[in-house]
Amino acid sequence: MKLGDVIKSADFKSEKHVPVIDTPDKVKSDELFKVEVQVGKDIHHPNTVEHHISWIDLYIHYDGDPNTVHLGRFEFGPAVTEPHVVTHIKLNKKGTLIAHSYCNIHGLWESQKEIDVE
Amino acid sequence: MKLGDVIKSADFKSEKHVPVIDTPDKVKSDELFKVEVQVGKDIHHPNTVEHHISWIDLYIHYDGDPNTVHLGRFEFGPAVTEPHVVTHIKLNKKGTLIAHSYCNIHGLWESQKEIDVE
Amino acid sequence: MKLGDVIKSADFKSEKHVPVIDTPDKVKSDELFKVEVQVGKDIHHPNTVEHHISWIDLYIHYDGDPNTVHLGRFEFGPAVTEPHVVTHIKLNKKGTLIAHSYCNIHGLWESQKEIDVE
Amino acid sequence: MKLGDVIKSADFKSEKHVPVIDTPDKVKSDELFKVEVQVGKDIHHPNTVEHHISWIDLYIHYDGDPNTVHLGRFEFGPAVTEPHVVTHIKLNKKGTLIAHSYCNIHGLWESQKEIDVE
Ligand SMILES: [Fe+3]
Ligand SMILES: [Fe+3]
Ligand SMILES: [Fe+3]
Ligand SMILES: [Fe+3]
Repeated sequence: MKLGDVIKSADFKSEKHVPVIDTPDKVKSDELFKVEVQVGKDIHHPNTVEHHISWIDLYIHYDGDPNTVHLGRFEFGPAVTEPHVVTHIKLNKKGTLIAHSYCNIHGLWESQKEIDVE
Repeated sequence: MKLGDVIKSADFKSEKHVPVIDTPDKVKSDELFKVEVQVGKDIHHPNTVEHHISWIDLYIHYDGDPNTVHLGRFEFGPAVTEPHVVTHIKLNKKGTLIAHSYCNIHGLWESQKEIDVE
Repeated sequence: MKLGDVIKSADFKSEKHVPVIDTPDKVKSDELFKVEVQVGKDIHHPNTVEHHISWIDLYIHYDGDPNTVHLGRFEFGPAVTEPHVVTHIKLNKKGTLIAHSYCNIHGLWESQKEIDVE
Repeated sequence: MKLGDVIKSADFKSEKHVPVIDTPDKVKSDELFKVEVQVGKDIHHPNTVEHHISWIDLYIHYDGDPNTVHLGRFEFGPAVTEPHVVTHIKLNKKGTLIAHSYCNIHGLWESQKEIDVE
């Protein structure tokens, strides 16, 4: 059993656990742009001490590169902070953004967004 | 020597390490609002593998409460991600937001913002 | 492209990036036991500001459960702290421990250890 | 109000929240040694989803240096993982180790241990 076997994925419009990545489809190389990442974009996820989204990790996997880069980890205080951040990054090559999130009850989830870099 | 003795503070307009918290001055109890937290608002801090802001922690200390609440921790991939996030929180009492940040060369820094909750 | 596609795995005796999990093969339900997790058990990994293991995440996937539980995350100060911890956990069912680690140059790695719980 | 004003301290033999640092009193410069850090060494702290120790941060403040170094952060899955780790570090100068921990109900705590480096 591998981590990839236990990270779930689905359509965020019907499954509230899926992290959603919003960015421009195309950005300029080495220029800062905004990335919005959230769980519960269309269907709100509970946010209580007993049941909440603990964190979201964000990665970039550049096309053709063997190695993935960790862009950031965002951890949310249960009940007070929503699993929803805007951050600011710069890339230098086309690739795939990957968001990885954790619900303390419903485990690991992921989603992707391809991004073009010119 | 205590942690409070080694966390530095200054005016962010003249010292690039100070984390800055931007929120409304007054919010409604238990209603979500945006908090923007960043290092380098007025004077940019370097962002390289050798010298960067690793993370920002955000707390609320409610007036008169003995205990402080951890709202979130935001970690930034060196060279790719800026120490600059917008997150979404809700409070139920007047208090002081505290941001705590870390430069891998210049150590620990903090700043505060009082917030009224009605 | 999924996270599972970019997390690498190998034999730790020949590949220095693989996290290694050491525990008893069988433990008692709800009784604390030690888990040792490390990168570089047989072949040392560099530990410099420019090249280091940033963190190790540890999970348990209980047999037959749909959801995975995050046991802990361990983050290591570059150049000063080795990616090597002993921690103390308790389980209540048979399952698979999964370690997930990150090298700032060579990306994401994982390994597993099955553990029997009686 | 500063972070130092809201981080509590006490004798760990009478107050269960205080993190305890165990190391040799003297170590050799640039040689790895073990550091054990835990909350609840003498008096056990609860470990449930509703009430637990979320994390421990570990720092070194070298004597006479203006800046503090973050040695590691250790985060513990509620109910399954105890706030108790052994990690491996190396120092190159005399200083003070500082542990900083967080209880989701009882807030921020700290303790120190001076360490001689030869
Ligand atoms: Fe959930
Ligand atoms: Fe700096
Ligand atoms: Fe490496
Ligand atoms: Fe407590």
